[in-house]
Amino acid sequence: MAAANANFLEISKAFCQHYYNVFDTDRAKLQTLYQDGSMLTFEDAQFMGMQAIMTKLTTLQFATVQHQVTTCDAQPTPGGGILCFITGKLVVDGGANPLMFGQTFHLMPTPQGSWYIHNDLFRLNYT
Amino acid sequence: MAAANANFLEISKAFCQHYYNVFDTDRAKLQTLYQDGSMLTFEDAQFMGMQAIMTKLTTLQFATVQHQVTTCDAQPTPGGGILCFITGKLVVDGGANPLMFGQTFHLMPTPQGSWYIHNDLFRLNYT
Repeated sequence: MAAANANFLEISKAFCQHYYNVFDTDRAKLQTLYQDGSMLTFEDAQFMGMQAIMTKLTTLQFATVQHQVTTCDAQPTPGGGILCFITGKLVVDGGANPLMFGQTFHLMPTPQGSWYIHNDLFRLNYT
Repeated sequence: MAAANANFLEISKAFCQHYYNVFDTDRAKLQTLYQDGSMLTFEDAQFMGMQAIMTKLTTLQFATVQHQVTTCDAQPTPGGGILCFITGKLVVDGGANPLMFGQTFHLMPTPQGSWYIHNDLFRLNYT
């Protein structure tokens, strides 16, 4: 993914597809998308830095997971970032009743012309 | 609200309470919270600038609305901003079946030491 803020919608959709595909097939590989300054709010818990975030994401208590994206919206932010707001359904361990989720990513450009996740806020919904 | 990024959680909660209170009682007064560079994604539609955003928000087709916030999460962003991710329920015209919603705000500081909404993404959920 090349860094081109003008293409924020395309970049957001490509990122979203990539992120959930990796999440659902091999979560450990998500580590390339986070950096030391990255932050994750996962439900009520907060994590800072790639290492802490990856420890959280790779120890979630399910065998299989599938993200089904319903909406993926995006806007450019000051400083050359891209804000992605996603809603969708989460199928955990092949369960018949998907959980609804919402997630916000703030992508920032890397010096190498790619993108990393600076902010990540995730909430299961909505009782 | 004074500009102090270190207090991002408090600022976020105060902003959230203020925003929805104004929205539910006198939407026209939200205009002080947007600027010319502000962006709104409201469901599938996009609006740029305070004027276009306010036209949208003040012509929504309901008589009364009440936002019930379930969660309000926040993180600081590069450039001194604050990201707020809210989930909750929307009671429209006193209806018995609240609609679920998710909303992401990206607040940026003003030169006057206050905050404005640079990014605003809103989605009703979740069928």
